[in-house]
Amino acid sequence: MTDSTTNMRLKLPITCFILEIILIILFGVLVQYDHETDSREWHKSNHSDYENDFYYRYPSFQDVHVMIFIGFGFLMTFLQRYGFSSVGFNFLIAAFALQWATLMQGFFHGMHGGKIHIGVESMINADFCTGSVLISFGAVLGKTSPVQLLIMAMFEVTLFAVNEFILLSILGTKDAGGSMTIHTFGAYFGLMVTRILYRPNLDKSKHRNSSVYHSDMFAMIGTIYLWMFWPSFNSAITAHGDDQHRTALNTYYSLAACTLSTYAMSSLTAHDGKLDMVHIQNAALAGGVAAGTAGEMMLTPFGSMIVGFLAGIISVLGFKYLSPILEEKLKIQDTCGVHNLHGMPGILGAIVGAVTAAVATTDVYGNGMKDVFPMIADGGKASYQGGIQAISLAVTLGIALLGGLIVGFILKLPIFGQPPDTICFEDSIYWEVGWINGDIASTIRCQ
Amino acid sequence: MTDSTTNMRLKLPITCFILEIILIILFGVLVQYDHETDSREWHKSNHSDYENDFYYRYPSFQDVHVMIFIGFGFLMTFLQRYGFSSVGFNFLIAAFALQWATLMQGFFHGMHGGKIHIGVESMINADFCTGSVLISFGAVLGKTSPVQLLIMAMFEVTLFAVNEFILLSILGTKDAGGSMTIHTFGAYFGLMVTRILYRPNLDKSKHRNSSVYHSDMFAMIGTIYLWMFWPSFNSAITAHGDDQHRTALNTYYSLAACTLSTYAMSSLTAHDGKLDMVHIQNAALAGGVAAGTAGEMMLTPFGSMIVGFLAGIISVLGFKYLSPILEEKLKIQDTCGVHNLHGMPGILGAIVGAVTAAVATTDVYGNGMKDVFPMIADGGKASYQGGIQAISLAVTLGIALLGGLIVGFILKLPIFGQPPDTICFEDSIYWEVGWINGDIASTIRCQ
Amino acid sequence: MTDSTTNMRLKLPITCFILEIILIILFGVLVQYDHETDSREWHKSNHSDYENDFYYRYPSFQDVHVMIFIGFGFLMTFLQRYGFSSVGFNFLIAAFALQWATLMQGFFHGMHGGKIHIGVESMINADFCTGSVLISFGAVLGKTSPVQLLIMAMFEVTLFAVNEFILLSILGTKDAGGSMTIHTFGAYFGLMVTRILYRPNLDKSKHRNSSVYHSDMFAMIGTIYLWMFWPSFNSAITAHGDDQHRTALNTYYSLAACTLSTYAMSSLTAHDGKLDMVHIQNAALAGGVAAGTAGEMMLTPFGSMIVGFLAGIISVLGFKYLSPILEEKLKIQDTCGVHNLHGMPGILGAIVGAVTAAVATTDVYGNGMKDVFPMIADGGKASYQGGIQAISLAVTLGIALLGGLIVGFILKLPIFGQPPDTICFEDSIYWEVGWINGDIASTIRCQ
Repeated sequence: MTDSTTNMRLKLPITCFILEIILIILFGVLVQYDHETDSREWHKSNHSDYENDFYYRYPSFQDVHVMIFIGFGFLMTFLQRYGFSSVGFNFLIAAFALQWATLMQGFFHGMHGGKIHIGVESMINADFCTGSVLISFGAVLGKTSPVQLLIMAMFEVTLFAVNEFILLSILGTKDAGGSMTIHTFGAYFGLMVTRILYRPNLDKSKHRNSSVYHSDMFAMIGTIYLWMFWPSFNSAITAHGDDQHRTALNTYYSLAACTLSTYAMSSLTAHDGKLDMVHIQNAALAGGVAAGTAGEMMLTPFGSMIVGFLAGIISVLGFKYLSPILEEKLKIQDTCGVHNLHGMPGILGAIVGAVTAAVATTDVYGNGMKDVFPMIADGGKASYQGGIQAISLAVTLGIALLGGLIVGFILKLPIFGQPPDTICFEDSIYWEVGWINGDIASTIRCQ
Repeated sequence: MTDSTTNMRLKLPITCFILEIILIILFGVLVQYDHETDSREWHKSNHSDYENDFYYRYPSFQDVHVMIFIGFGFLMTFLQRYGFSSVGFNFLIAAFALQWATLMQGFFHGMHGGKIHIGVESMINADFCTGSVLISFGAVLGKTSPVQLLIMAMFEVTLFAVNEFILLSILGTKDAGGSMTIHTFGAYFGLMVTRILYRPNLDKSKHRNSSVYHSDMFAMIGTIYLWMFWPSFNSAITAHGDDQHRTALNTYYSLAACTLSTYAMSSLTAHDGKLDMVHIQNAALAGGVAAGTAGEMMLTPFGSMIVGFLAGIISVLGFKYLSPILEEKLKIQDTCGVHNLHGMPGILGAIVGAVTAAVATTDVYGNGMKDVFPMIADGGKASYQGGIQAISLAVTLGIALLGGLIVGFILKLPIFGQPPDTICFEDSIYWEVGWINGDIASTIRCQ
Repeated sequence: MTDSTTNMRLKLPITCFILEIILIILFGVLVQYDHETDSREWHKSNHSDYENDFYYRYPSFQDVHVMIFIGFGFLMTFLQRYGFSSVGFNFLIAAFALQWATLMQGFFHGMHGGKIHIGVESMINADFCTGSVLISFGAVLGKTSPVQLLIMAMFEVTLFAVNEFILLSILGTKDAGGSMTIHTFGAYFGLMVTRILYRPNLDKSKHRNSSVYHSDMFAMIGTIYLWMFWPSFNSAITAHGDDQHRTALNTYYSLAACTLSTYAMSSLTAHDGKLDMVHIQNAALAGGVAAGTAGEMMLTPFGSMIVGFLAGIISVLGFKYLSPILEEKLKIQDTCGVHNLHGMPGILGAIVGAVTAAVATTDVYGNGMKDVFPMIADGGKASYQGGIQAISLAVTLGIALLGGLIVGFILKLPIFGQPPDTICFEDSIYWEVGWINGDIASTIRCQ
């Protein structure tokens, strides 16, 4: 299965080396420790070492980090012959994206006297941006070369930072868990890319575009880690104190309710009542996505449960009925079904956030209003904040779709070594694997 | 392998929907943010955001959360054809149980002015209660439908909360790591349920009631996570400061000593000296169970090691010699051997706790006595506390056995879709799986 | 495959029991809670429970703990028929080593009035020392009995503590993440042991000394966990505040850069450009090793990236070109290639640390100098500190090589039950496994 067009011997090393050298140079010129990581700066002020934000953000960061590398990486190993690429390319593009995101996010909203200041909060934000790229990766999974993925990551990170800047810094949108900035953006960007990269003859690789028993078990590792740590994800960069605490709590109950509705819908929509691993692996997570915007708000535990409950239902229905339509009618080949896990639940989360913001009152938030809605605390109207939230969704969708369109065409350039239609979803193009040409059948039979 | 009696198409969705809707309604009526998660309440008082308990409990919570969903879930994947159900039903019933536990535990010991107040501590307690249900799940693994499991969880959570209330609130028992409330309760409840559900013809599914190479590897993920995070489990809800610190330390050494005695006994009891994965996966964890009550006390590191050392020995001997007797003579079909991992080590832990409490002196505990033994600090006798601890074990065993008896008979009702004797330990009844009827042999041969 | 010489029925239980009983006795005589874990001591002083170091070290400890048991354990499961032993012996020797390390490290640098005081910091240090043993385990993987491994651990922990004492306590070396004390020491100790245990006929087990598809997937779990938590590893015992924060940040970027250079080099050095799982699983981690000494220093983010970038290149080149030479010319059979992951990157890390120390100025470190370089803060010259760092590398190499030499000869004694050349890299000698003699071929074919 070696093919001159997919041979990465020069393309991949050159891409990696150029990107990393550019990163190193830009870091050398632009990036500095912030005042909590710099030895001299930290010791200038009079505070205890225990007040360093490291102790209040780093455990959340590590949970997010696990979601990015284990969660996303293993979630995508469900394909029978694409485990190396799923976890391996996830690893590669995430390692690149988090560096590039540090620069792009710093450039747009982290500059101090011409320098980008970094610390644990920027690390969390870089991982968040990376998450968005990995969502898009899910849409094109199995059909792209690692060079294409790196190029996609480069552009997507940049556009992510632009969108994030517009929302958070210009409009004053609240979106701590990223229902819009991360999930909606990543999903619709990826869906547009995969639309542009449409392969009419993908059914030639159809026999590999499915799971086997063990690949589903590996994927469950990803699912469970994402599910468990989602409360940390949504709360990682909210304001300290009650805000982080409440966000984690809301997400916890949203996910729990989502899991029950997912199992119910999975069984209900199967003709023989049997559960489908695709739903369990994905839809059970929709409650985390949908609590991404409103999680830090006074959503109440039962509000969170309703959101999760609906997210699970929508997501399973999407997998069952909408995805086949998207593929047939709109020519969107969405390998992981990111539209059902990140797209629709992201939009749901944005709407829930807009509504929850629009009904915020000082009676409910008290002096905590300034942490959750600084604009309302400063005298703005809650309905205005709600309007901002709704506009933000539209902006996000616009940038994601337009960006995906452009990037999709760039990725179509024949120089990036994308696999032919006959060998998609196949590790052996890019990896040394034990099996030999033609041995596919025996592998599948034996799993 | 589709069978009208095991078809879940209506049973499972209806059960999930009814349960979740009841939960949402009850949460709406009864549940409120506590003063650390509520925006207005938290900002009423004059404290730093960094004093929020989130920062002092949430990392422990996440470790416990991993034990519940990855630890228990993957530990049970050792069966060759039951991986989807092990990790998938674990996921489902845990997601339900943690919501229901929030209500039941709140009802018994978390009410404030007619409302249940929730935050990170209630989340940990809900996960703990869930752990107890998952222990019982281990006893009936492979022989029950998901609907039966949800029903069992509903009753067990309720009885768990009653027992916990009697011990912690009425008697003043100390049991932070749950040797009694979680492990002894969950094990004997589950053993009684599986006794009532006794299947005389279970040997018709015998060929599936064993592991294959890869299923044992997946199970080791569960084992290692449980082992690593047990120090966090036992210390998650002890008093802050030295108490949490000491509990983690004691559990760490108890587990390390337990691991050595487990390996020793596993090799010693095999005719050819070969290690048995069943022992390694389970008995090596008994040291965590046995340190559940006394872990927060001044057990000393070497006392902890003795406890762990004995727990490992008892547990392996249980797997090797007692389990076959329980099955043949008492008709207790204990799939995961929870009696050896949670039952006997739980009782050992309760006894160690009673003895350690009975010898507590102010000389050893100093001003810390009020955190560990408030009753002794208030002038009570240590021997009285020891007596309370011993009585608590008896109460726990009583409620667990009686509760298991009743719930077992409820689960026997033929409407819940339990699998026939010929297709136990088999994913394909409840899950879409790649293999086809009759293809069992090839799967087993190939693993 | 049962053989009287490899039969562990008496050897393993006797070794485990004797070691554990000695440990328990020595703990009883020598070990005490420190003032943060002891009930009376902690409550003597006037401080808040929230100031207990538990809250500032324990999350790091748990990350390190995961690296030791999941990271190292699963990284070594890449061999096709050695998964039980990889994760199982890793578990056994780590459980022993952390107890023995508590005593040895306490004896050399934790004595207070004739007693060893323990708490979360000693737990981290014990895990660190254990890590060093597991590195050596990687060199001899598949060729040693569990009894040999326990004996090796006993001696190696002792020598580790001696070396650590010389460096940290006598010389005043800085090595928080252990480029020298952990990685260089563990690697060269293990390489010397495997040199002494050289097997000229190891090619008789050659067909088992390789991976299959699923074993590589399990190994990736280990890789990713090591990669994610390495920032916690390097920062776990640095000074509080900016130091921990900066160390985590530096390691994060070093690893990210290393990942890109690893992928680039893996593709570049393959004749068909295909990525090699061995490189990805190992070389991508070299950036963590190489940032072990200088991570806490003002290395700057871009300095960290250069270090990681070089470490990845060196490591892949080592796997590709140096390992075969070491095996053929120097008779060093290094199963996991620890020379490439821990040896050379460890030396690189030591050199980077020496250079970074030698150029330290008060202008850069400010009042934080006393945390990073107490000797320089007290008026010492930076170049002197640099010299100390360089000498420390030489000392470490000397003790590791000499220690490995002696321990290697001890392990050659025929009483420890080492496997014959024909059945290396094989679980079924020491474990009950499903497969039967002669069934190797079918297992391999089916993976």
